[in-house]
Amino acid sequence: SPAIAQQQGSLPELLNLQRDDGQWVMPAKDYSATRYSSLDQINILNVDQLKVAWTFSTGVLRGHEGAPLVVGSTMYLITPFPNIVYALNLTQPGPAVKWKFVPDTDPRSIGVACCDVVNRGLTYADGKVFFNTLDAHTYALNANTGEVVWQVKQGDVARGETITMAPLVVKDKVITGISGGEFGIRGFLTANDIHTGEQVWRAYTTGPDSEVLIGDDFKPFYDSLKGKDLGVTTWPEDQWKIGGSATWTWLSYDPELDLLYHGVGNPGTWNPDLRPGDNKWSMTIFARDPDTGSARWAYQKTPHDQWDYDGVNENILVTLTINGKPRKVLVNFDRNGFAYTIDRATGEVLVAQPYVYVNWASGVDLETGVPARNADKSTKQGVNTTNICPAAMGGKDQQPAAFSPRTGLFYVPTNNLCMDYEGTEVAYVAGVPYVGATVKMYAGPGGNRGEFVAWDGARGRKVWGIKENFSVWSGVLATGGNVVFYGTMDGWFKAVNAVTGEVLWTFKVGSGIIGAPMTFLGPDGKQYVAVYSGIGGWSGLTVAGDLSLEDPTAALGAVNAFSDLGRYTNKGGMLYVFSL
Amino acid sequence: SPAIAQQQGSLPELLNLQRDDGQWVMPAKDYSATRYSSLDQINILNVDQLKVAWTFSTGVLRGHEGAPLVVGSTMYLITPFPNIVYALNLTQPGPAVKWKFVPDTDPRSIGVACCDVVNRGLTYADGKVFFNTLDAHTYALNANTGEVVWQVKQGDVARGETITMAPLVVKDKVITGISGGEFGIRGFLTANDIHTGEQVWRAYTTGPDSEVLIGDDFKPFYDSLKGKDLGVTTWPEDQWKIGGSATWTWLSYDPELDLLYHGVGNPGTWNPDLRPGDNKWSMTIFARDPDTGSARWAYQKTPHDQWDYDGVNENILVTLTINGKPRKVLVNFDRNGFAYTIDRATGEVLVAQPYVYVNWASGVDLETGVPARNADKSTKQGVNTTNICPAAMGGKDQQPAAFSPRTGLFYVPTNNLCMDYEGTEVAYVAGVPYVGATVKMYAGPGGNRGEFVAWDGARGRKVWGIKENFSVWSGVLATGGNVVFYGTMDGWFKAVNAVTGEVLWTFKVGSGIIGAPMTFLGPDGKQYVAVYSGIGGWSGLTVAGDLSLEDPTAALGAVNAFSDLGRYTNKGGMLYVFSL
Ligand SMILES: O=C(O)c1cc(C(=O)O)c2c(n1)C(=O)C(=O)c1cc(C(=O)O)[nH]c1-2
Ligand SMILES: O=C(O)c1cc(C(=O)O)c2c(n1)C(=O)C(=O)c1cc(C(=O)O)[nH]c1-2
Repeated sequence: SPAIAQQQGSLPELLNLQRDDGQWVMPAKDYSATRYSSLDQINILNVDQLKVAWTFSTGVLRGHEGAPLVVGSTMYLITPFPNIVYALNLTQPGPAVKWKFVPDTDPRSIGVACCDVVNRGLTYADGKVFFNTLDAHTYALNANTGEVVWQVKQGDVARGETITMAPLVVKDKVITGISGGEFGIRGFLTANDIHTGEQVWRAYTTGPDSEVLIGDDFKPFYDSLKGKDLGVTTWPEDQWKIGGSATWTWLSYDPELDLLYHGVGNPGTWNPDLRPGDNKWSMTIFARDPDTGSARWAYQKTPHDQWDYDGVNENILVTLTINGKPRKVLVNFDRNGFAYTIDRATGEVLVAQPYVYVNWASGVDLETGVPARNADKSTKQGVNTTNICPAAMGGKDQQPAAFSPRTGLFYVPTNNLCMDYEGTEVAYVAGVPYVGATVKMYAGPGGNRGEFVAWDGARGRKVWGIKENFSVWSGVLATGGNVVFYGTMDGWFKAVNAVTGEVLWTFKVGSGIIGAPMTFLGPDGKQYVAVYSGIGGWSGLTVAGDLSLEDPTAALGAVNAFSDLGRYTNKGGMLYVFSL
Repeated sequence: SPAIAQQQGSLPELLNLQRDDGQWVMPAKDYSATRYSSLDQINILNVDQLKVAWTFSTGVLRGHEGAPLVVGSTMYLITPFPNIVYALNLTQPGPAVKWKFVPDTDPRSIGVACCDVVNRGLTYADGKVFFNTLDAHTYALNANTGEVVWQVKQGDVARGETITMAPLVVKDKVITGISGGEFGIRGFLTANDIHTGEQVWRAYTTGPDSEVLIGDDFKPFYDSLKGKDLGVTTWPEDQWKIGGSATWTWLSYDPELDLLYHGVGNPGTWNPDLRPGDNKWSMTIFARDPDTGSARWAYQKTPHDQWDYDGVNENILVTLTINGKPRKVLVNFDRNGFAYTIDRATGEVLVAQPYVYVNWASGVDLETGVPARNADKSTKQGVNTTNICPAAMGGKDQQPAAFSPRTGLFYVPTNNLCMDYEGTEVAYVAGVPYVGATVKMYAGPGGNRGEFVAWDGARGRKVWGIKENFSVWSGVLATGGNVVFYGTMDGWFKAVNAVTGEVLWTFKVGSGIIGAPMTFLGPDGKQYVAVYSGIGGWSGLTVAGDLSLEDPTAALGAVNAFSDLGRYTNKGGMLYVFSL
C-alpha cells in the first residue's frame, strides 16, 4: 500500500542498490557494513596485472578517509576540510567533473577537530547525496545537479562540536553522529528527514533515560546495564553533561530486525579519577529503532574507561555458525583490543577474544559481560602507568574491517601500539581541549606498529596476519575474486589472497593510505578498484599537520609513535582508480 | 694538465653524464636544451602499453613546472614554494625518500611572484645539486646527504625580486637568473662558484655596457644593436633602473663555441608610452662567455615591446641544413609568435616565421633583424587596442619545446590566445606590482586555446599540429623510440608518433600538467618516463590560486582566458612515473 511505501521511504531503493555490486551507494557498501562486493573480474589469478586506470586530485592535502560512492555512472567524492564534494561523470574518459560543491565550512572547526580534519564519506538515497561538514552541519544535495536541497546545523564548533563521520540513510531518515569527545561535548545521534532536513529524533549518549531514548522496550542482556537513568547515576554530579561519549564513526542497520547499530566513544575527560563510576553510556554499542531512536539493547565494552578505548568502532552484521547453530551476530573489533561477537537481536556476547596484544584485561566474562582488568594497568592522576597495551589508538581505530561471505573471515586492519598514560588535572572550558592525560605511544611487542589480520569471528581467533611497519590505518575491501585490498600509511596499496594471506600485488601511491578501498563496475562493464591516497588522521597528523617532533606526547601521544612517518610519505590528496 | 682540468671544472663530468641517456642531470637533458633522449625501449610500437609504475606526492599544491633529475640511482625533485627538495632512492621499491631538505624560504616571496610560486628544477654537478628558491636564494646541497654546502642571496623580495628558474652549471660556475619583470626590478644573470658560492660575475640586462658586460669582443650581427651604452640610451632617463628585463627561464650552452645563451624578458612597465625607445636589452637573446659573462653577440627580437612579449624563451642548439649547408643554429620560439633560427656563432637570423597566428607584425626583416609592425596593433596609454595576436602569454610561454635528431623536427607546446590591451598610468613603488596595463586574453582563431606543433626549423614551417582546448603549458620530451610526450592543462598525458603526430596513448593524471616530461633508465635497466602533475603557472592561476573569476582582467589578464579551468582540473602536486 502507498502508506507502507511512504513509511519505508528509501528502503526498497537502497536494498536494491546495495545488492547491485556494480554500484557502491553507502559508506560500507551495504547496511551490514561488510565492505564486500561479489565482483570477481579482478581475482587471485589476475590481480597481479592490476594497473592505474585514472587518478583524480581532490585539490586538498590532509587525511583522506572513507571511500567514494558510485551511483549509476556517477562517482561522488568528498574531501577533508573544507569538505568539497565532486560528482564525476564516469561515462567520459578522464572522467570529467559533472559538478563541484564547495560548502562554506567554518574554519574554526579546524582548531577543534581532535584528530585531523578528515571526512569519512557521503551516502546516497532518493536522488540526493548526504554528508556532514567539519563544522557540524549535515547537507543534502541534488545528486544530479549538486544543488543544496537542505542543510542543518547539528552542533556548535564554539563548543568543540565537529562532524567527521559519514551519515547513513534508513528509510526516510538520515542518521548522523557527532565528534568532540576530547572537548567535553555531550554526545548524541540525530535523525533528520531526508526530504526536508527536519530533525525527527536525537538520542543523547549520556544523561537521563528520556534523553538517551531509553524506554520500556529497552532490554539489555546484562544486569549491569539495567536500572534507571544510568547515564546520570554512573557519573559524578553533572559530569555527564561534559562527558564526551561521541558517535564519530560508522553506522550499520539490519532491515529484518529493523535495528540501527552505533557505538559510543570515550568518556571525558581522559583522567579517570575525575569521573568515578561506569560512565554510561560511554564505550557502548546501542541497538536502536531507526524510526524513533528508542534503544532496544546496549552493551558497554569498557565501563569506566581509563585508556581512551573509544568504543565507536563499526559493527559488522553477519550470520555465523556458533556451537553448530547459525546466529545473527554483530562483530565489533573494539579499540580495547577485544573482538566481540554479539547476538545482534539481544546484545548477548557470544565470543570475546583479543585480536591484538592486550594486557589491560585478561579477558571478558561472558556471564556478566564485564572485562577482567589487570590492576597494574589501571591509570590514575599523577601516576605514569607504563606499557599498557593496546595504546589509546586501540587495537583498531577508525579504519573499518571487512567480511567475506566466501571465506567466512573478517579482514582487520590493526594497530600494534602500547603506551604510557598519566591522568592530569584539567578543568572544563567550552571549546577548549578537555583531555586530562599525558600519553606517549610506541610500537608493541615485535616492533611492527601494525598487522593486517584475518579473523575467525565464530571461534574468536586469528587465522593469519601480515605484519606492517606502520599501523594499518586504511579500511579494507573484500571481493568475490577472493582478493582483499588494504593500504599502508607509507603508501603501499596491497592485494592479498583472502584465503592464504599471500600478498599478490602491491602498488606505491603518492601519499599514505588511510581511506577505505571500494570497487564498482564502470559504464564499460569493467571492474574498477578505487582508493584515496592522502596521509592524515590521528596517526598521520605528524605529516598532515606538519607537527613539530619535539614533544613526544603531542597530538595526544601520536607524535612519539609516528615521528618517523615523514621519512616514508608526504602529504597528498588523490583518488587512484585501478583496473586490469 | 691539472691547470686546464681545474679550469674546465665540471665540464668533462657533465658532458659524460648528459651523453648517458640512462640519466637526466640537467633541466633540459643536455646543454643544447633538446630534451631528447635516445632511449627506445618505449617506442611507437609499444607505448600504448605504458602504465603507471609509481607515484610520489610532493606534499605541495600549486603549479609544478620543470622536471626531476636522475643521477645514478637517485632522483631529485623540487616543489613549488617553499621549494622542498627530495632525493629518492630508486633502488628501493617505492621508491624511498633518501633525504628531504626544507629551505627556510621567505613567505613574503609568495606575494611578489607574478605568475604562481613555481620552480623549474634543479641541476647537478660535482656531487652537488643546485637550485633556486622563490625568495631569490641559490643553494648547493651535497647530493648524497642533502646537507647545505652553501647558499647565497641573489636578490631582495622586498624589491620584488624572486627566482623561479632552474640554474645551469658550466665548468666551475652555476648560472642563475632573476624574476620580477612585473615589479620594476633591474634584470641580471649571475655566476657563482660551484664550490664556494662566491659570485664570479653578474651581468645586468639594462644599464651601461660596463654592467651589462658588453666589451670589446661584443660583435652583434645587426647595426641596430651596435653603439655605446644602449642599455641606457634607449630608455627615458633612469627608466632602465626599473626596466624589468628579467632572466627567468631556461639556459643553454655550446661547449665547442664556449658560449652561454640566455633570453631577457619584457621591459617594465607594460605601458609602452612611459618608455619610448628600443628599451635595450629587454627582449634580447645574449651569447656570453661563461667564464667572464662578457657578451659576444645579442639580438633583440621585439624592440620597444608593447605587448609583454617577454623574450626569455629557451634557445635550443642544433645543427640544421639551411640552403644546403649545415649550420650551427639556435632555435627560439618567442612569445611574440615568431620562431627564430639564428646562427649561434654570430647572431644572424636565418629564418623567422610565425609558428602561431600573429597579427602584430607581418614578418621579420632578415636584413635588419627588425619586425615589421602593424600600426593598428600597437598599444598605447588610454586606448584599448583589441584583438592582438598572440596575447601577452605569447605563442609559447615557459613551456619548453624539444628537438629530435631522429626526425629533425621541433615539438612545440603552443598557445592560441589573443588579447585586448590598454596602457595605464603607473608609478614605481619598490616591491609593488609595476604593470601599467589592463589586459584581457581569450582564445585565438578557431577557439582552441592551444596546439601541439611539429616544426621544421630549417624551413620555418609547421609540419603538423594537434589542437588542444587549453594552452599546452607543459614541456615536451622527444625520444629515440620516435615518441614525443606532452601534457595538457586538464591533465591528459599524451604520447605521440614523432613523425606523423598520431596520438598513440593518453592517460589522465590527477591535476593539470605544466611540468616537463623526462625519461631515464631505472636501476633495473628499464626505461621510465616521469612527469609532474600540478596545475598552476600563469595560465593555471585561476585554479592554483583559487582566484575569484569576477574580474576578467585579473592575474594580468589570465582570468578571462582560463575561467573554465576549474571545471576540468583541480590543484595537485604529484610525480607520475610510467613504464611498460
Ligand atoms: O571522541 C571524539 O569525538 C573523537 C573524534 C574523532 C574524529 O572525529 O575524527 C576521533 C577520535 N575521537 C578518536 O578517539 C580517534 O582515535 C580518532 C582517530 C581519528 C582519525 O580520523 O584518524 N579520528 C578520531
Ligand atoms: O618578468 C618576469 O620576471 C617574469 C617571471 C615569471 C616567473 O618567474 O615565473 C613569469 C613571467 N615573467 C611571465 O611573463 C610569464 O608569462 C610567466 C609565466 C610563468 C609560469 O610559470 O607560468 N611565469 C612567468
